Amino acid sequence: MPETHKSPPLRLGIAGLGTVGAGVVRIVRQKAELIAARAGRPVEITAVSARNRDKDRGVSLEGYDWEDNPVTLARRADVDVLVELMGGSDGPAKAATEAAIAAGKDVVTANKAMLAHHGQALAEAAEAAGRVIRFEAAVAGGIPIIKSLTEGLAANEITRVMGVMNGTCNYILTRMQSAGLPYETVFQEADKLGYLEADPQLDVGGIDAGHKLSLLSSIAFGTQVDFDAVQLEGIGKIMIEDIEQAADLGYRIKLLGVAQLTGRGLEQRMSPCLVPATSPLGQLEGGTNMVVVEGDDVGQIVLRGAGAGEGPTASAVMGDVMDIARGLRISTFGQPASTLKTAQPASGNTPAPYYLRMTLHDKPGALAKVAARLGDAGVSIDRMRQYGHDDTAAPVLIITHKTTRGALDEAIAAIETLNVVTDTPVALRIEEV
Amino acid sequence: MPETHKSPPLRLGIAGLGTVGAGVVRIVRQKAELIAARAGRPVEITAVSARNRDKDRGVSLEGYDWEDNPVTLARRADVDVLVELMGGSDGPAKAATEAAIAAGKDVVTANKAMLAHHGQALAEAAEAAGRVIRFEAAVAGGIPIIKSLTEGLAANEITRVMGVMNGTCNYILTRMQSAGLPYETVFQEADKLGYLEADPQLDVGGIDAGHKLSLLSSIAFGTQVDFDAVQLEGIGKIMIEDIEQAADLGYRIKLLGVAQLTGRGLEQRMSPCLVPATSPLGQLEGGTNMVVVEGDDVGQIVLRGAGAGEGPTASAVMGDVMDIARGLRISTFGQPASTLKTAQPASGNTPAPYYLRMTLHDKPGALAKVAARLGDAGVSIDRMRQYGHDDTAAPVLIITHKTTRGALDEAIAAIETLNVVTDTPVALRIEEV
Repeated sequence: MPETHKSPPLRLGIAGLGTVGAGVVRIVRQKAELIAARAGRPVEITAVSARNRDKDRGVSLEGYDWEDNPVTLARRADVDVLVELMGGSDGPAKAATEAAIAAGKDVVTANKAMLAHHGQALAEAAEAAGRVIRFEAAVAGGIPIIKSLTEGLAANEITRVMGVMNGTCNYILTRMQSAGLPYETVFQEADKLGYLEADPQLDVGGIDAGHKLSLLSSIAFGTQVDFDAVQLEGIGKIMIEDIEQAADLGYRIKLLGVAQLTGRGLEQRMSPCLVPATSPLGQLEGGTNMVVVEGDDVGQIVLRGAGAGEGPTASAVMGDVMDIARGLRISTFGQPASTLKTAQPASGNTPAPYYLRMTLHDKPGALAKVAARLGDAGVSIDRMRQYGHDDTAAPVLIITHKTTRGALDEAIAAIETLNVVTDTPVALRIEEV
Repeated sequence: MPETHKSPPLRLGIAGLGTVGAGVVRIVRQKAELIAARAGRPVEITAVSARNRDKDRGVSLEGYDWEDNPVTLARRADVDVLVELMGGSDGPAKAATEAAIAAGKDVVTANKAMLAHHGQALAEAAEAAGRVIRFEAAVAGGIPIIKSLTEGLAANEITRVMGVMNGTCNYILTRMQSAGLPYETVFQEADKLGYLEADPQLDVGGIDAGHKLSLLSSIAFGTQVDFDAVQLEGIGKIMIEDIEQAADLGYRIKLLGVAQLTGRGLEQRMSPCLVPATSPLGQLEGGTNMVVVEGDDVGQIVLRGAGAGEGPTASAVMGDVMDIARGLRISTFGQPASTLKTAQPASGNTPAPYYLRMTLHDKPGALAKVAARLGDAGVSIDRMRQYGHDDTAAPVLIITHKTTRGALDEAIAAIETLNVVTDTPVALRIEEV
């Protein structure tokens, strides 16, 4: 174990000075003593880079060199670790990461998009150069889930990983429920509060959370990141009545990511699901994140914490930085990138019960026809209710027994040809958690 | 990053073949390939030691040398890591650990009692010899809390650590509530189910959980382990009516450990507390454990999982073993033992509201006298109720405003001199979680 004042400092170059970058600068300045005591050596910042040099970020940049070009920053001889906090799957983030590795630096990043798209190539390059890429901050903010999976639970065959990992979506869904407001209204609210990405589809379309799930899949199952195979479904079609009906049945609707290795291949889904209201996932409110890991020996482990924000995300970045300072070096995805298997996407999803909502034209026999089409497709009905009924249309709610998504989609297609439903039925998976 | 088949195996000597030891043997045998792929080298068992050689443990010991004496095992030239799973604060466990360190071996242990009493000396010895002692399995079973605190959250000033860390006590308390049974009955049940330690005070007296709390305090606050300063209060005095009254008020009773660094010093408490029924801690049922960590940057992180049992505990042991196999080496308590400060035990506890239950002799003016004594001690009453009242005695429940334990104890002592209560009042802290 090295002693604090005999070891040379670990020198950071920080690319990107948004909320998280400024948070990292603040922590390095404020907690130098604590960090040195725990890491066994000081951690310092040599140089920083961002788009706008003049912006006031609420932290002092005194004593740091400025680089306009993050690639130049990444190559500096007095930088040991590139801390990449610019974001974006390609462009400057990727260029700087590649430059850092080529120049023999380690990389700490919060960039889920970059790793979801280029993680395998970057990990191979880093390992060939004997460097590490760490990304605790890329998934679930301050929750130490990457470390828990790759290190603490490393002796487990992971059977399933689940998570609520987009705070904005969880905010929208819980706010719809608590205030009884429609999706569009709460979406506007979230936008005004600055909770949404510039492209809101990254949040409400499930893309951001899907990026995170693809990274968890890789480390959980020893497979190459395969974001393209993540089945993405956003929350935009969730109506307030879905939330209310689900609550009546004892459920909550969450944008839930699930990855599991099945006999049919690797299943990766990011979609709105019903989970029991009394389960840890069901009780998750607002911007908080939760990841549930199931391992053959450890059973179920649940981790919960802030999924975003300056402090929590910078805490995760600094955890990675301190690992590097301490000499704790681990392969990007928990085992050498060359040993990661190619994931075989599952041909269909694990069967589950489904929640099915549709509105019928008020014609005699409509419901019987729907029931018949479900039966034809092999989908059996557990519960059915009609509710809030006007003269022309009758909303109907059906909970199915366990079925496959394929059978359900077949039934829905058949129902749509009947000319008895006003709109495409909404189908939501009920996840056992 | 080393490749699997080029690196020499990490060789374990396992001392103690109870449930956890047998689990470790099973995992090493069953998952050799997974472990080698992730750790970058094979993990093997060279020799084992236990009290009874002939016992059937449900796993094969074929290919392992047997040592009657764990100290001999610890010194073997073909052992790299002593896995100490015998338990007990002194005796063979400590002797073998010391022998291993002296012989230049690393140590992985699940022994909270040994570390609570001798952790500082053992850590100093290990660090002087350049070896590590790892103890993830000693606290909260399969939950990777030691790793999360010492590594993932290392950049945080920890403000508070809380936990429900004795599954037996949580089983007893939740079973009392769900079945409406008195403490004694459920205690007997737990005994028959084999849930209790040979000395049940280790469980129900809070000693085992107190050991764990003292270890968490050390790594959270950078202080030397100080088990003697843990304020211990067991669950033996909790009556079914306490559980029912607490539930009526929206609370659950948990044997809760709390460690926090205050202006008055380090506060370490292990005692039955009331927590909100809707909080993650309040919702914890049966043998599941939960640890809540609060850091200045990360905010609140909650970890939940199985706190005991063969699989979860062996999973934690193997996580430590795989860290050593990977070359991840960290000081026992997260920073060099020589830099840990001596903890200053807090002079008094952080103020909190309290739950106070007493039974009054049915005499006129009794309640007024009680209220006056509380007022004299500066304890103000938030809510008070009388319930289930017979001819001679009246049970009374009082919820106080925030007060100190000192003021409350003063009031209770004064109340007892009044000759109006049938028994010593029961006082339980209401913890903000």
